[in-house]
Amino acid sequence: MKKTKISSKLLNILTRNKSFVIAGHINPEGDAIGSILALALGLKKTGRKNIHLLSRDGVPANLKFLPYAGLVKQLPPKKTVDVLIIADCNTLERTGFREVKAKNTVIIDHHIPPDNAGESELYKKLSAGLIDPKAAATGMLIFKLLTALNIPIDKDMATNLYTAILVDTGGFRYSNTSPESLRMACHLVEAGARPWDITKELYESIPYKSVKLLGLSLATLDKKDGIAWMTATRDMFKKTGTTSEDSEDFVDYPRKVKESEVAVFFREDEKDVFKLSLRSKGKIDVQKIANSFGGGGHFAAAGCKLKGTLRDVQKKVFAEVRKAIKNAK
Amino acid sequence: MKKTKISSKLLNILTRNKSFVIAGHINPEGDAIGSILALALGLKKTGRKNIHLLSRDGVPANLKFLPYAGLVKQLPPKKTVDVLIIADCNTLERTGFREVKAKNTVIIDHHIPPDNAGESELYKKLSAGLIDPKAAATGMLIFKLLTALNIPIDKDMATNLYTAILVDTGGFRYSNTSPESLRMACHLVEAGARPWDITKELYESIPYKSVKLLGLSLATLDKKDGIAWMTATRDMFKKTGTTSEDSEDFVDYPRKVKESEVAVFFREDEKDVFKLSLRSKGKIDVQKIANSFGGGGHFAAAGCKLKGTLRDVQKKVFAEVRKAIKNAK
Repeated sequence: MKKTKISSKLLNILTRNKSFVIAGHINPEGDAIGSILALALGLKKTGRKNIHLLSRDGVPANLKFLPYAGLVKQLPPKKTVDVLIIADCNTLERTGFREVKAKNTVIIDHHIPPDNAGESELYKKLSAGLIDPKAAATGMLIFKLLTALNIPIDKDMATNLYTAILVDTGGFRYSNTSPESLRMACHLVEAGARPWDITKELYESIPYKSVKLLGLSLATLDKKDGIAWMTATRDMFKKTGTTSEDSEDFVDYPRKVKESEVAVFFREDEKDVFKLSLRSKGKIDVQKIANSFGGGGHFAAAGCKLKGTLRDVQKKVFAEVRKAIKNAK
Repeated sequence: MKKTKISSKLLNILTRNKSFVIAGHINPEGDAIGSILALALGLKKTGRKNIHLLSRDGVPANLKFLPYAGLVKQLPPKKTVDVLIIADCNTLERTGFREVKAKNTVIIDHHIPPDNAGESELYKKLSAGLIDPKAAATGMLIFKLLTALNIPIDKDMATNLYTAILVDTGGFRYSNTSPESLRMACHLVEAGARPWDITKELYESIPYKSVKLLGLSLATLDKKDGIAWMTATRDMFKKTGTTSEDSEDFVDYPRKVKESEVAVFFREDEKDVFKLSLRSKGKIDVQKIANSFGGGGHFAAAGCKLKGTLRDVQKKVFAEVRKAIKNAK
């Protein structure tokens, strides 16, 4: 990986100002929350007290264990602050707020900026940025930033950053697992992060009712023509007392099926309304398929919503997937 | 982690002899197969050709992707070899063979040697050893050994060693995930190991019928008093055309249950004969529980066999687990 360049302008903005808002994105996961917490803890170490952490949707239940998660607020401050830092996303819209009053705006992110970024208001007034789409996680950029600021990483920061990197590399599994991400993980464990304690909170503390829901949903697992799929119906959610949040990673199960090239998870949100999650093993671009139904995502992970009976919805989607598999051959 | 000491005697045995048997253990997993393959590839680099890789139960289906897995044999050579290397286990019994004819015997392992090791025939005639129960994986000891032998680690060795470490740290999740294991992982990725390719083979290529079996078994998931458990019956194996191998990691599911301190998976091997897998979240020593039923294992992962109806077996085991949970409070 090419060395990420950190501009002296960014360092100056962080060291010469007093009040900060650090905002993550809507529907936050470990990289967003871990990154903003670690950065805040780091800046606090340098004596800065006026730091406002912002996450419109708060902190999800499985991330409440993160050190100082209680600092995260769901509303921006009323007064104008010196610096707004947008982390793990690259538009104000993704933060869930139209405007946060700030004299300077900074983006720290590992997503590809939108095509029309140059023309947008936000980018025109951007004071500085640390944007590197090659970084596996925004947490890696925060790690580098803290290092550049000569802020030693303590156990609490390490726990937040380890979580950020762990989540965005799929537990050091995805192809973005670079030597650098493992080297940082090594430093973070040395600094006090405890892999099993973090794993236990993230992956080994699933409510009983969610695992029951998984059992019911798995009973619908089926496969055909390189597609594997399963469904969670409203009836299953009702029976187990669960909500759609409990089926978050269910698409991983049809994805695990050896015989599948594409995996689909159908979640019944209302009668005849289905939220679809699509996954690819690497040959098929499921983003294209999701796009064709008005959805979006990435090459290997995408989603969309469809109306109709389960039977009709499946028929439509499978036809598109089969076409894509045929074209890929 | 304390630096593992590699004796010059061991290095001499490896560099001054010509013919080798390298044996893993019965029911091998990634650490056993990855370790013996990496060591063999390393020794081959130094010009040694007479290397016989031995695994009584061969190479499991999900490890056949490992570079040079085809070299592994299920029977020992008839002629006497210079050196027998017992890897990832510490008794001849665990290799599945009573005797392998060799002039020297070496153990490379990260398990705790048996209590009576000093008196055993094997240990009396042991030529050298590299035994470090603090190492997360035998693969880590092989890594150090290859380094001490000045053998550069190539892509094939790296893939084998990365798999060994990945499997024994539970994908860098268990508490044995040390800075050192992550540092080695980093070096191995730099040497050519590809995390996603390995992950895909290990965790994302599960036969459809195995996932169906998981669904059937999950339907039996239950919990009480800090214990979560599930069962796979002979009927389920029959219905899905699977074998006990397909239920290898099923105990992970009751373990994931937030409300559980101890997880148990009951596998019906014959009528009224159950193989139990026990897992602890960290407070209860399940090895003790397994021992009380004639089984064994580690603090957090153990197993045993019990005879009786499912009802009776569960009653007996849950009584022991409840006692342990009560004592731990």
